[in-house]
Amino acid sequence: MGRVTARRRVLRIRDGVPSHRPDTLAAEEPMEIRVGGRPLTITMRTPGHDFDLAAGFLVGEGVVRAAEDVVGIRYCAGATADGSNTYNVVDVALAPGVALPEASLERNFYTTSSCGLCGKASLDAVRTKTTWPLDESSPRIGLETLTALPDRLREAQRVFDSTGGLHAAGLFTADGELTCLREDVGRHNAVDKVIGDALRANRLPLRDSVLMVSGRASFELVQKAVMAGIPMLAAVSAPSSLAVDLAADSGLTLIGFLRGRSMNVYTGTDRVRTELAVSS
Amino acid sequence: MGRVTARRRVLRIRDGVPSHRPDTLAAEEPMEIRVGGRPLTITMRTPGHDFDLAAGFLVGEGVVRAAEDVVGIRYCAGATADGSNTYNVVDVALAPGVALPEASLERNFYTTSSCGLCGKASLDAVRTKTTWPLDESSPRIGLETLTALPDRLREAQRVFDSTGGLHAAGLFTADGELTCLREDVGRHNAVDKVIGDALRANRLPLRDSVLMVSGRASFELVQKAVMAGIPMLAAVSAPSSLAVDLAADSGLTLIGFLRGRSMNVYTGTDRVRTELAVSS
Repeated sequence: MGRVTARRRVLRIRDGVPSHRPDTLAAEEPMEIRVGGRPLTITMRTPGHDFDLAAGFLVGEGVVRAAEDVVGIRYCAGATADGSNTYNVVDVALAPGVALPEASLERNFYTTSSCGLCGKASLDAVRTKTTWPLDESSPRIGLETLTALPDRLREAQRVFDSTGGLHAAGLFTADGELTCLREDVGRHNAVDKVIGDALRANRLPLRDSVLMVSGRASFELVQKAVMAGIPMLAAVSAPSSLAVDLAADSGLTLIGFLRGRSMNVYTGTDRVRTELAVSS
Repeated sequence: MGRVTARRRVLRIRDGVPSHRPDTLAAEEPMEIRVGGRPLTITMRTPGHDFDLAAGFLVGEGVVRAAEDVVGIRYCAGATADGSNTYNVVDVALAPGVALPEASLERNFYTTSSCGLCGKASLDAVRTKTTWPLDESSPRIGLETLTALPDRLREAQRVFDSTGGLHAAGLFTADGELTCLREDVGRHNAVDKVIGDALRANRLPLRDSVLMVSGRASFELVQKAVMAGIPMLAAVSAPSSLAVDLAADSGLTLIGFLRGRSMNVYTGTDRVRTELAVSS
Protein backbone atom coordinates (compact mmCIF):
# COMPACT_ATOMS: atom_id res chain seq x y z
CA MET A 1 0.00 0.00 0.00
CA GLY A 2 0.93 3.60 -0.56
CA ARG A 3 4.07 2.84 -2.56
CA VAL A 4 4.90 5.61 -5.01
CA THR A 5 7.68 3.59 -6.65
CA ALA A 6 8.46 -0.10 -7.12
CA ARG A 7 11.69 -1.96 -7.92
CA ARG A 8 11.98 -4.47 -10.75
CA ARG A 9 14.93 -6.23 -12.39
CA VAL A 10 15.60 -5.05 -15.95
CA LEU A 11 17.81 -6.00 -18.90
CA ARG A 12 19.46 -2.69 -19.67
CA ILE A 13 21.02 -2.26 -23.13
CA ARG A 14 23.28 0.73 -23.78
CA ASP A 15 24.93 1.01 -27.20
CA GLY A 16 24.37 -2.69 -27.76
CA VAL A 17 25.89 -3.76 -24.43
CA PRO A 18 23.42 -5.64 -22.19
CA SER A 19 23.52 -5.89 -18.41
CA HIS A 20 21.09 -6.82 -15.66
CA ARG A 21 20.30 -4.25 -13.00
CA PRO A 22 17.48 -3.17 -10.70
CA ASP A 23 15.24 -0.37 -11.93
CA THR A 24 12.84 1.98 -10.17
CA LEU A 25 9.34 2.29 -11.63
CA ALA A 26 6.37 4.54 -10.97
CA ALA A 27 3.78 2.53 -9.06
CA GLU A 28 0.35 2.03 -10.64
CA GLU A 29 -2.64 0.50 -8.83
CA PRO A 30 -6.40 0.67 -9.41
CA MET A 31 -8.45 2.84 -7.06
CA GLU A 32 -12.20 2.82 -6.75
CA ILE A 33 -13.98 5.97 -5.60
CA ARG A 34 -17.25 5.39 -3.75
CA VAL A 35 -19.70 8.02 -2.59
CA GLY A 36 -21.90 7.09 0.33
CA GLY A 37 -20.83 3.48 -0.17
CA ARG A 38 -21.85 3.41 -3.84
CA PRO A 39 -19.15 2.81 -6.49
CA LEU A 40 -18.72 5.82 -8.78
CA THR A 41 -15.54 5.26 -10.79
CA ILE A 42 -12.28 3.33 -10.98
CA THR A 43 -9.03 5.03 -11.93
CA MET A 44 -5.51 3.62 -12.39
CA ARG A 45 -3.36 5.83 -10.19
CA THR A 46 -0.08 6.09 -8.32
CA PRO A 47 -0.84 5.40 -4.63
CA GLY A 48 -0.52 8.36 -2.28
CA HIS A 49 -2.74 11.40 -1.54
CA ASP A 50 -5.69 9.12 -2.25
CA PHE A 51 -8.18 11.17 -0.22
CA ASP A 52 -7.15 14.29 -2.16
CA LEU A 53 -7.66 12.33 -5.38
CA ALA A 54 -11.20 11.35 -4.38
CA ALA A 55 -12.08 14.87 -3.21
CA GLY A 56 -10.60 16.52 -6.29
CA PHE A 57 -12.40 14.13 -8.61
CA LEU A 58 -15.70 15.14 -7.00
CA VAL A 59 -14.89 18.84 -7.48
CA GLY A 60 -14.39 18.19 -11.19
CA GLU A 61 -17.72 16.42 -11.37
CA GLY A 62 -19.49 19.35 -9.70
CA VAL A 63 -20.49 17.27 -6.65
CA VAL A 64 -18.61 19.21 -3.93
CA ARG A 65 -17.22 22.74 -3.74
CA ALA A 66 -16.33 23.41 -0.10
CA ALA A 67 -14.62 21.44 2.66
CA GLU A 68 -17.90 21.26 4.57
CA ASP A 69 -19.54 19.33 1.69
CA VAL A 70 -17.41 16.34 2.72
CA VAL A 71 -17.93 14.94 6.21
CA GLY A 72 -15.49 12.06 5.92
CA ILE A 73 -13.17 10.10 3.61
CA ARG A 74 -11.88 6.64 4.50
CA TYR A 75 -10.36 3.49 3.05
CA CYS A 76 -12.86 0.63 2.88
CA ALA A 77 -11.76 -2.45 4.72
CA GLY A 78 -13.61 -5.69 4.14
CA ALA A 79 -13.73 -5.35 0.37
CA THR A 80 -11.72 -8.58 0.17
CA ALA A 81 -12.61 -12.17 0.94
CA ASP A 82 -10.33 -12.23 3.97
CA GLY A 83 -11.48 -8.83 5.20
CA SER A 84 -8.10 -7.18 4.65
CA ASN A 85 -7.71 -3.62 3.39
CA THR A 86 -6.07 -3.14 -0.01
CA TYR A 87 -6.08 0.66 0.42
CA ASN A 88 -7.48 0.83 -3.10
CA VAL A 89 -11.13 1.57 -2.28
CA VAL A 90 -11.96 5.03 -0.94
CA ASP A 91 -15.41 6.03 0.30
CA VAL A 92 -16.48 9.67 0.54
CA ALA A 93 -19.29 10.61 2.91
CA LEU A 94 -21.12 13.74 1.75
CA ALA A 95 -22.77 16.26 4.07
CA PRO A 96 -26.57 16.17 4.32
CA GLY A 97 -28.11 18.04 1.42
CA VAL A 98 -25.23 17.47 -1.00
CA ALA A 99 -26.67 15.61 -3.97
CA LEU A 100 -25.17 12.25 -4.91
CA PRO A 101 -23.57 12.13 -8.36
CA GLU A 102 -25.05 10.16 -11.21
CA ALA A 103 -22.99 7.04 -11.91
CA SER A 104 -24.05 6.78 -15.53
CA LEU A 105 -21.97 6.98 -18.69
CA GLU A 106 -23.92 9.94 -19.88
CA ARG A 107 -23.51 12.13 -16.83
CA ASN A 108 -21.00 14.45 -18.46
CA PHE A 109 -22.62 14.72 -21.80
CA TYR A 110 -26.36 14.44 -22.06
CA THR A 111 -27.56 16.32 -19.02
CA THR A 112 -27.92 19.74 -20.55
CA SER A 113 -27.94 19.49 -24.28
CA SER A 114 -30.35 18.35 -26.91
CA CYS A 115 -27.68 18.37 -29.60
CA GLY A 116 -26.48 14.84 -28.96
CA LEU A 117 -22.92 13.77 -28.31
CA CYS A 118 -20.57 16.40 -29.69
CA GLY A 119 -18.03 18.96 -28.62
CA LYS A 120 -20.70 21.60 -28.06
CA ALA A 121 -22.66 19.30 -25.75
CA SER A 122 -19.49 18.75 -23.74
CA LEU A 123 -19.03 22.51 -23.34
CA ASP A 124 -22.68 22.95 -22.35
CA ALA A 125 -22.38 20.24 -19.70
CA VAL A 126 -19.43 21.97 -18.04
CA ARG A 127 -21.12 25.38 -18.23
CA THR A 128 -24.18 24.28 -16.28
CA LYS A 129 -22.09 22.61 -13.58
CA THR A 130 -19.67 25.51 -13.06
CA THR A 131 -19.88 26.94 -9.56
CA TRP A 132 -17.53 29.89 -9.94
CA PRO A 133 -17.65 31.62 -13.32
CA LEU A 134 -14.23 33.05 -14.15
CA ASP A 135 -14.27 36.83 -14.35
CA GLU A 136 -11.76 39.38 -15.52
CA SER A 137 -10.84 40.51 -12.02
CA SER A 138 -8.26 37.75 -11.67
CA PRO A 139 -4.65 38.95 -11.74
CA ARG A 140 -2.55 39.60 -14.78
CA ILE A 141 0.72 37.69 -14.84
CA GLY A 142 3.97 38.79 -16.44
CA LEU A 143 6.03 36.79 -18.92
CA GLU A 144 8.97 36.41 -16.53
CA THR A 145 6.76 34.73 -13.94
CA LEU A 146 5.19 32.39 -16.50
CA THR A 147 8.44 31.33 -18.12
CA ALA A 148 9.86 30.37 -14.71
CA LEU A 149 7.08 27.85 -13.99
CA PRO A 150 8.31 24.82 -16.00
CA ASP A 151 11.69 24.75 -14.27
CA ARG A 152 10.10 25.13 -10.86
CA LEU A 153 7.70 22.28 -11.58
CA ARG A 154 10.46 20.09 -12.90
CA GLU A 155 12.80 20.78 -9.98
CA ALA A 156 10.11 19.78 -7.51
CA GLN A 157 9.41 16.48 -9.30
CA ARG A 158 11.36 14.10 -7.13
CA VAL A 159 9.69 10.84 -8.17
CA PHE A 160 9.99 11.64 -11.86
CA ASP A 161 13.75 11.91 -11.39
CA SER A 162 13.95 8.30 -10.21
CA THR A 163 11.44 6.73 -12.61
CA GLY A 164 10.93 9.01 -15.61
CA GLY A 165 7.36 7.78 -15.48
CA LEU A 166 5.20 10.34 -13.74
CA HIS A 167 3.12 13.27 -14.83
CA ALA A 168 3.06 16.35 -12.64
CA ALA A 169 0.54 19.04 -11.76
CA GLY A 170 1.63 22.11 -9.81
CA LEU A 171 -0.42 24.93 -8.34
CA PHE A 172 1.32 28.31 -8.33
CA THR A 173 0.44 31.72 -6.94
CA ALA A 174 0.22 34.70 -9.30
CA ASP A 175 3.78 35.51 -8.17
CA GLY A 176 5.03 32.11 -9.37
CA GLU A 177 5.36 30.45 -5.96
CA LEU A 178 4.65 26.70 -5.97
CA THR A 179 2.02 25.88 -3.35
CA CYS A 180 1.19 22.24 -4.20
CA LEU A 181 2.81 19.60 -6.40
CA ARG A 182 1.46 16.13 -7.12
CA GLU A 183 2.88 13.34 -9.35
CA ASP A 184 0.92 10.44 -10.80
CA VAL A 185 0.98 7.98 -13.72
CA GLY A 186 -2.22 9.74 -14.84
CA ARG A 187 -2.09 13.48 -15.50
CA HIS A 188 -5.78 13.82 -14.61
CA ASN A 189 -5.10 12.16 -11.25
CA ALA A 190 -2.26 14.58 -10.50
CA VAL A 191 -4.66 17.48 -11.18
CA ASP A 192 -7.39 15.91 -9.03
CA LYS A 193 -4.90 15.51 -6.16
CA VAL A 194 -3.88 19.18 -6.33
CA ILE A 195 -7.49 20.38 -6.41
CA GLY A 196 -8.59 17.91 -3.71
CA ASP A 197 -5.84 19.18 -1.42
CA ALA A 198 -7.19 22.72 -1.87
CA LEU A 199 -10.80 21.66 -1.32
CA ARG A 200 -9.97 19.91 1.94
CA ALA A 201 -8.18 23.06 3.13
CA ASN A 202 -11.29 25.01 2.05
CA ARG A 203 -9.35 27.15 -0.40
CA LEU A 204 -11.73 26.91 -3.36
CA PRO A 205 -12.23 28.76 -5.65
CA LEU A 206 -8.53 29.06 -6.55
CA ARG A 207 -8.98 32.51 -8.08
CA ASP A 208 -5.44 33.85 -7.88
CA SER A 209 -3.57 30.79 -9.07
CA VAL A 210 -2.03 29.15 -12.10
CA LEU A 211 -2.20 25.39 -12.69
CA MET A 212 0.79 24.00 -14.59
CA VAL A 213 0.85 20.47 -16.02
CA SER A 214 3.52 18.37 -17.67
CA GLY A 215 2.67 17.22 -21.18
CA ARG A 216 -0.51 18.11 -23.01
CA ALA A 217 -3.76 19.89 -22.17
CA SER A 218 -6.96 18.00 -22.90
CA PHE A 219 -10.63 18.91 -22.55
CA GLU A 220 -10.68 16.97 -19.28
CA LEU A 221 -7.88 19.03 -17.68
CA VAL A 222 -9.50 22.33 -18.68
CA GLN A 223 -12.78 21.07 -17.19
CA LYS A 224 -11.09 20.29 -13.89
CA ALA A 225 -9.43 23.74 -13.74
CA VAL A 226 -12.69 25.53 -14.55
CA MET A 227 -14.61 23.55 -11.92
CA ALA A 228 -12.05 24.61 -9.28
CA GLY A 229 -12.26 28.28 -10.26
CA ILE A 230 -8.66 28.35 -11.56
CA PRO A 231 -8.31 31.19 -14.12
CA MET A 232 -5.12 30.00 -15.86
CA LEU A 233 -3.87 26.60 -17.09
CA ALA A 234 -0.38 26.22 -18.58
CA ALA A 235 0.97 23.08 -20.27
CA VAL A 236 4.42 22.11 -21.47
CA SER A 237 3.01 20.69 -24.69
CA ALA A 238 0.02 21.10 -27.03
CA PRO A 239 -3.66 21.55 -26.21
CA SER A 240 -6.43 19.83 -28.14
CA SER A 241 -9.12 21.67 -30.11
CA LEU A 242 -11.80 20.96 -27.50
CA ALA A 243 -9.51 22.10 -24.67
CA VAL A 244 -9.18 25.47 -26.44
CA ASP A 245 -12.91 25.65 -27.12
CA LEU A 246 -13.81 24.97 -23.48
CA ALA A 247 -11.21 27.48 -22.26
CA ALA A 248 -12.66 30.14 -24.58
CA ASP A 249 -16.20 29.31 -23.50
CA SER A 250 -15.26 29.46 -19.81
CA GLY A 251 -13.05 32.55 -19.83
CA LEU A 252 -9.97 30.54 -18.79
CA THR A 253 -6.49 31.52 -19.96
CA LEU A 254 -4.98 28.49 -21.70
CA ILE A 255 -1.24 28.43 -22.42
CA GLY A 256 0.56 25.69 -24.35
CA PHE A 257 4.14 24.95 -25.39
CA LEU A 258 5.44 26.86 -22.35
CA ARG A 259 9.16 26.31 -22.86
CA GLY A 260 12.14 28.57 -22.35
CA ARG A 261 11.01 32.14 -23.01
CA SER A 262 8.29 31.10 -25.44
CA MET A 263 4.64 30.07 -25.22
CA ASN A 264 1.36 30.01 -27.12
CA VAL A 265 -1.57 31.76 -25.44
CA TYR A 266 -4.73 30.23 -26.90
CA THR A 267 -7.44 32.00 -24.90
CA GLY A 268 -7.81 34.69 -22.25
CA THR A 269 -4.79 36.63 -23.49
CA ASP A 270 -5.69 39.68 -21.32
CA ARG A 271 -4.31 37.90 -18.25
CA VAL A 272 -0.83 37.66 -19.80
CA ARG A 273 1.12 40.89 -19.36
CA THR A 274 3.50 41.54 -22.25
CA GLU A 275 5.97 44.43 -22.30
CA LEU A 276 5.89 44.79 -26.06
CA ALA A 277 2.91 45.67 -28.24
CA VAL A 278 1.38 42.77 -30.16
CA SER A 279 2.04 42.70 -33.88
CA SER A 280 -0.54 41.07 -36.13
CA MET B 1 -17.08 15.36 -38.61
CA GLY B 2 -13.90 13.46 -39.19
CA ARG B 3 -11.57 16.40 -38.73
CA VAL B 4 -8.15 15.31 -37.49
CA THR B 5 -6.96 18.89 -36.98
CA ALA B 6 -8.60 22.23 -36.26
CA ARG B 7 -7.40 25.83 -36.73
CA ARG B 8 -7.50 28.41 -33.93
CA ARG B 9 -6.04 31.89 -33.57
CA VAL B 10 -3.25 32.08 -30.98
CA LEU B 11 -1.12 34.72 -29.28
CA ARG B 12 2.36 33.43 -29.95
CA ILE B 13 5.20 34.73 -27.77
CA ARG B 14 8.80 34.04 -28.79
CA ASP B 15 11.57 35.49 -26.64
CA GLY B 16 9.13 37.99 -25.22
CA VAL B 17 7.87 39.17 -28.62
CA PRO B 18 4.11 38.64 -29.07
CA SER B 19 2.25 38.17 -32.35
CA HIS B 20 -1.10 36.85 -33.45
CA ARG B 21 -1.20 33.92 -35.86
CA PRO B 22 -3.32 30.91 -36.76
CA ASP B 23 -2.34 27.60 -35.17
CA THR B 24 -3.17 24.00 -36.02
CA LEU B 25 -4.46 21.82 -33.18
CA ALA B 26 -5.18 18.13 -32.79
CA ALA B 27 -8.95 17.64 -32.90
CA GLU B 28 -10.66 16.13 -29.84
CA GLU B 29 -14.31 15.05 -29.76
CA PRO B 30 -16.28 12.65 -27.55
CA MET B 31 -17.25 9.29 -29.05
CA GLU B 32 -19.73 6.87 -27.57
CA ILE B 33 -19.36 3.16 -28.32
CA ARG B 34 -22.61 1.20 -28.31
CA VAL B 35 -22.99 -2.55 -28.66
CA GLY B 36 -26.29 -3.78 -30.01
CA GLY B 37 -27.70 -0.30 -29.42
CA ARG B 38 -26.70 -0.24 -25.75
CA PRO B 39 -24.17 2.43 -24.57
CA LEU B 40 -20.93 0.86 -23.34
CA THR B 41 -18.38 3.65 -22.94
CA ILE B 42 -17.50 7.20 -23.95
CA THR B 43 -13.96 8.17 -24.93
CA MET B 44 -12.48 11.52 -25.90
CA ARG B 45 -10.75 10.84 -29.21
CA THR B 46 -9.42 12.39 -32.39
CA PRO B 47 -12.02 11.76 -35.12
CA GLY B 48 -11.04 9.30 -37.84
CA HIS B 49 -10.83 5.50 -38.00
CA ASP B 50 -13.78 5.45 -35.61
CA PHE B 51 -14.95 1.96 -36.61
CA ASP B 52 -11.44 0.63 -35.95
CA LEU B 53 -11.50 2.35 -32.57
CA ALA B 54 -14.78 0.68 -31.64
CA ALA B 55 -13.63 -2.74 -32.88
CA GLY B 56 -10.26 -2.49 -31.17
CA PHE B 57 -11.81 -1.43 -27.90
CA LEU B 58 -13.97 -4.56 -27.96
CA VAL B 59 -10.89 -6.74 -28.59
CA GLY B 60 -9.28 -5.28 -25.49
CA GLU B 61 -12.38 -6.03 -23.48
CA GLY B 62 -12.40 -9.64 -24.63
CA VAL B 63 -15.73 -9.27 -26.43
CA VAL B 64 -14.60 -10.01 -30.02
CA ARG B 65 -11.59 -11.84 -31.46
CA ALA B 66 -12.29 -12.42 -35.16
CA ALA B 67 -13.75 -10.36 -38.00
CA GLU B 68 -16.78 -12.66 -38.10
CA ASP B 69 -17.68 -11.73 -34.50
CA VAL B 70 -18.75 -8.31 -35.84
CA VAL B 71 -21.58 -8.23 -38.38
CA GLY B 72 -21.74 -4.46 -38.72
CA ILE B 73 -20.50 -1.10 -37.45
CA ARG B 74 -22.29 2.17 -38.19
CA TYR B 75 -22.70 5.75 -37.06
CA CYS B 76 -25.98 6.33 -35.24
CA ALA B 77 -28.12 9.04 -36.75
CA GLY B 78 -31.04 10.38 -34.82
CA ALA B 79 -29.16 10.72 -31.56
CA THR B 80 -29.86 14.44 -31.70
CA ALA B 81 -33.05 16.41 -31.32
CA ASP B 82 -33.08 17.39 -34.99
CA GLY B 83 -32.18 13.89 -36.16
CA SER B 84 -28.80 14.91 -37.55
CA ASN B 85 -25.72 12.72 -37.28
CA THR B 86 -22.84 14.02 -35.16
CA TYR B 87 -20.62 11.10 -36.23
CA ASN B 88 -19.74 10.70 -32.57
CA VAL B 89 -21.92 7.68 -31.73
CA VAL B 90 -20.87 4.31 -33.13
CA ASP B 91 -22.94 1.15 -32.80
CA VAL B 92 -21.40 -2.32 -33.16
CA ALA B 93 -23.64 -5.25 -34.09
CA LEU B 94 -22.24 -8.55 -32.81
CA ALA B 95 -22.73 -11.90 -34.51
CA PRO B 96 -25.27 -14.30 -32.98
CA GLY B 97 -23.68 -16.15 -30.07
CA VAL B 98 -21.15 -13.44 -29.21
CA ALA B 99 -21.86 -12.43 -25.62
CA LEU B 100 -22.64 -8.79 -24.89
CA PRO B 101 -20.12 -7.07 -22.61
CA GLU B 102 -20.97 -6.00 -19.08
CA ALA B 103 -21.35 -2.25 -18.88
CA SER B 104 -20.50 -2.07 -15.19
CA LEU B 105 -17.61 -0.34 -13.47
CA GLU B 106 -16.40 -3.58 -12.05
CA ARG B 107 -16.17 -5.51 -15.29
CA ASN B 108 -12.40 -5.36 -15.46
CA PHE B 109 -11.68 -5.99 -11.86
CA TYR B 110 -14.06 -8.11 -9.85
CA THR B 111 -15.04 -10.82 -12.28
CA THR B 112 -12.42 -13.37 -11.39
CA SER B 113 -10.86 -12.49 -8.10
CA SER B 114 -11.89 -12.67 -4.50
CA CYS B 115 -8.95 -10.52 -3.40
CA GLY B 116 -10.72 -7.21 -3.88
CA LEU B 117 -9.48 -4.27 -5.89
CA CYS B 118 -5.71 -4.50 -6.23
CA GLY B 119 -2.99 -5.02 -8.79
CA LYS B 120 -3.23 -8.79 -8.54
CA ALA B 121 -6.97 -8.73 -9.20
CA SER B 122 -6.28 -6.66 -12.31
CA LEU B 123 -3.80 -9.27 -13.57
CA ASP B 124 -6.23 -12.11 -12.82
CA ALA B 125 -9.00 -10.36 -14.76
CA VAL B 126 -6.86 -10.08 -17.89
CA ARG B 127 -5.62 -13.67 -17.58
CA THR B 128 -9.13 -15.14 -17.64
CA LYS B 129 -10.14 -13.07 -20.64
CA THR B 130 -7.05 -13.79 -22.74
CA THR B 131 -7.88 -15.63 -25.94
CA TRP B 132 -4.36 -16.28 -27.23
CA PRO B 133 -1.78 -17.04 -24.54
CA LEU B 134 1.62 -15.78 -25.66
CA ASP B 135 4.08 -18.63 -26.17
CA GLU B 136 7.79 -18.76 -26.77
CA SER B 137 7.45 -19.64 -30.45
CA SER B 138 7.15 -16.01 -31.43
CA PRO B 139 10.16 -14.57 -33.26
CA ARG B 140 13.29 -13.18 -31.71
CA ILE B 141 14.14 -9.67 -32.81
CA GLY B 142 17.59 -8.14 -33.12
CA LEU B 143 18.74 -4.89 -31.57
CA GLU B 144 19.24 -3.18 -34.93
CA THR B 145 15.61 -3.79 -35.85
CA LEU B 146 14.34 -2.56 -32.49
CA THR B 147 16.41 0.60 -32.39
CA ALA B 148 15.12 1.60 -35.83
CA LEU B 149 11.47 1.61 -34.71
CA PRO B 150 11.23 5.03 -32.98
CA ASP B 151 12.48 6.92 -36.03
CA ARG B 152 10.15 4.99 -38.33
CA LEU B 153 7.19 5.75 -36.07
CA ARG B 154 8.11 9.40 -35.82
CA GLU B 155 8.67 9.80 -39.56
CA ALA B 156 5.22 8.42 -40.26
CA GLN B 157 3.51 10.78 -37.81
CA ARG B 158 2.22 13.41 -40.16
CA VAL B 159 -0.40 14.99 -37.92
CA PHE B 160 1.99 15.26 -35.00
CA ASP B 161 4.25 17.35 -37.18
CA SER B 162 1.56 19.97 -37.63
CA THR B 163 0.12 19.99 -34.12
CA GLY B 164 2.63 18.49 -31.67
CA GLY B 165 -0.43 17.14 -29.91
CA LEU B 166 -0.95 13.53 -30.90
CA HIS B 167 0.12 10.19 -29.51
CA ALA B 168 1.04 7.44 -31.94
CA ALA B 169 0.78 3.67 -32.03
CA GLY B 170 2.50 1.70 -34.77
CA LEU B 171 2.36 -1.98 -35.62
CA PHE B 172 5.57 -3.42 -37.05
CA THR B 173 6.55 -6.79 -38.48
CA ALA B 174 9.39 -8.73 -36.85
CA ASP B 175 11.58 -7.29 -39.62
CA GLY B 176 10.75 -3.74 -38.55
CA GLU B 177 8.33 -2.89 -41.36
CA LEU B 178 5.52 -0.52 -40.35
CA THR B 179 2.15 -2.05 -41.25
CA CYS B 180 -0.27 0.30 -39.47
CA LEU B 181 0.07 3.72 -37.82
CA ARG B 182 -2.63 5.61 -35.95
CA GLU B 183 -2.50 8.98 -34.18
CA ASP B 184 -4.89 10.20 -31.48
CA VAL B 185 -5.07 12.62 -28.55
CA GLY B 186 -5.42 9.47 -26.40
CA ARG B 187 -2.65 6.86 -26.57
CA HIS B 188 -5.14 4.10 -25.70
CA ASN B 189 -7.33 5.17 -28.62
CA ALA B 190 -4.37 5.01 -31.02
CA VAL B 191 -3.71 1.44 -29.85
CA ASP B 192 -7.39 0.50 -30.18
CA LYS B 193 -7.42 1.86 -33.74
CA VAL B 194 -4.38 -0.23 -34.73
CA ILE B 195 -5.83 -3.40 -33.21
CA GLY B 196 -9.31 -2.74 -34.60
CA ASP B 197 -7.85 -2.36 -38.10
CA ALA B 198 -6.24 -5.79 -37.72
CA LEU B 199 -9.40 -7.38 -36.34
CA ARG B 200 -11.50 -6.12 -39.22
CA ALA B 201 -8.94 -7.58 -41.67
CA ASN B 202 -9.15 -10.81 -39.66
CA ARG B 203 -5.45 -10.76 -38.81
CA LEU B 204 -5.70 -11.55 -35.07
CA PRO B 205 -3.78 -12.84 -33.21
CA LEU B 206 -0.89 -10.55 -34.18
CA ARG B 207 1.73 -13.14 -33.26
CA ASP B 208 4.69 -11.95 -35.31
CA SER B 209 4.46 -8.25 -34.58
CA VAL B 210 5.77 -5.49 -32.38
CA LEU B 211 3.55 -2.68 -31.12
CA MET B 212 5.39 0.61 -30.60
CA VAL B 213 3.85 3.57 -28.74
CA SER B 214 4.93 7.14 -28.16
CA GLY B 215 5.30 8.10 -24.51
CA ARG B 216 4.73 5.73 -21.60
CA ALA B 217 3.46 2.19 -21.16
CA SER B 218 0.61 1.72 -18.70
CA PHE B 219 -1.25 -1.37 -17.49
CA GLU B 220 -4.01 -0.53 -19.94
CA LEU B 221 -1.71 -0.59 -23.00
CA VAL B 222 -0.16 -3.92 -21.98
CA GLN B 223 -3.67 -5.32 -21.54
CA LYS B 224 -4.65 -4.25 -25.04
CA ALA B 225 -1.51 -5.82 -26.55
CA VAL B 226 -2.03 -9.09 -24.67
CA MET B 227 -5.67 -9.31 -25.71
CA ALA B 228 -4.65 -8.95 -29.38
CA GLY B 229 -1.99 -11.66 -29.11
CA ILE B 230 0.88 -9.19 -29.64
CA PRO B 231 4.08 -10.63 -28.09
CA MET B 232 6.12 -7.42 -27.84
CA LEU B 233 5.31 -3.84 -26.74
CA ALA B 234 7.92 -1.07 -26.99
CA ALA B 235 7.54 2.45 -25.58
CA VAL B 236 9.62 5.59 -25.96
CA SER B 237 9.33 6.33 -22.25
CA ALA B 238 8.83 4.55 -18.91
CA PRO B 239 6.44 1.74 -18.00
CA SER B 240 4.52 1.62 -14.73
CA SER B 241 4.94 -1.11 -12.12
CA LEU B 242 1.62 -2.74 -13.01
CA ALA B 243 2.46 -2.67 -16.72
CA VAL B 244 5.62 -4.66 -15.96
CA ASP B 245 3.73 -7.05 -13.67
CA LEU B 246 1.08 -7.77 -16.30
CA ALA B 247 3.71 -8.23 -19.01
CA ALA B 248 5.57 -10.73 -16.81
CA ASP B 249 2.35 -12.54 -15.96
CA SER B 250 1.31 -12.74 -19.63
CA GLY B 251 4.66 -13.63 -21.20
CA LEU B 252 4.81 -10.37 -23.14
CA THR B 253 8.13 -8.69 -23.92
CA LEU B 254 7.96 -5.13 -22.56
CA ILE B 255 10.56 -2.58 -23.65
CA GLY B 256 10.84 0.97 -22.30
CA PHE B 257 13.07 3.99 -22.93
CA LEU B 258 13.68 2.82 -26.52
CA ARG B 259 15.87 5.71 -27.70
CA GLY B 260 18.93 5.78 -29.92
CA ARG B 261 20.80 2.49 -29.48
CA SER B 262 19.55 2.01 -25.91
CA MET B 263 16.55 0.42 -24.22
CA ASN B 264 15.35 -1.27 -21.06
CA VAL B 265 13.86 -4.75 -21.48
CA TYR B 266 11.61 -5.33 -18.48
CA THR B 267 10.14 -8.75 -19.28
CA GLY B 268 10.39 -11.51 -21.89
CA THR B 269 14.07 -10.81 -22.57
CA ASP B 270 14.43 -14.05 -24.59
CA ARG B 271 12.74 -12.41 -27.57
CA VAL B 272 15.47 -9.74 -27.79
CA ARG B 273 18.52 -11.01 -29.65
CA THR B 274 21.73 -9.46 -28.37
CA GLU B 275 25.11 -10.06 -29.98
CA LEU B 276 27.04 -9.71 -26.75
CA ALA B 277 26.74 -11.87 -23.63
CA VAL B 278 24.83 -10.31 -20.74
CA SER B 279 26.91 -9.16 -17.80
CA SER B 280 25.31 -9.17 -14.37
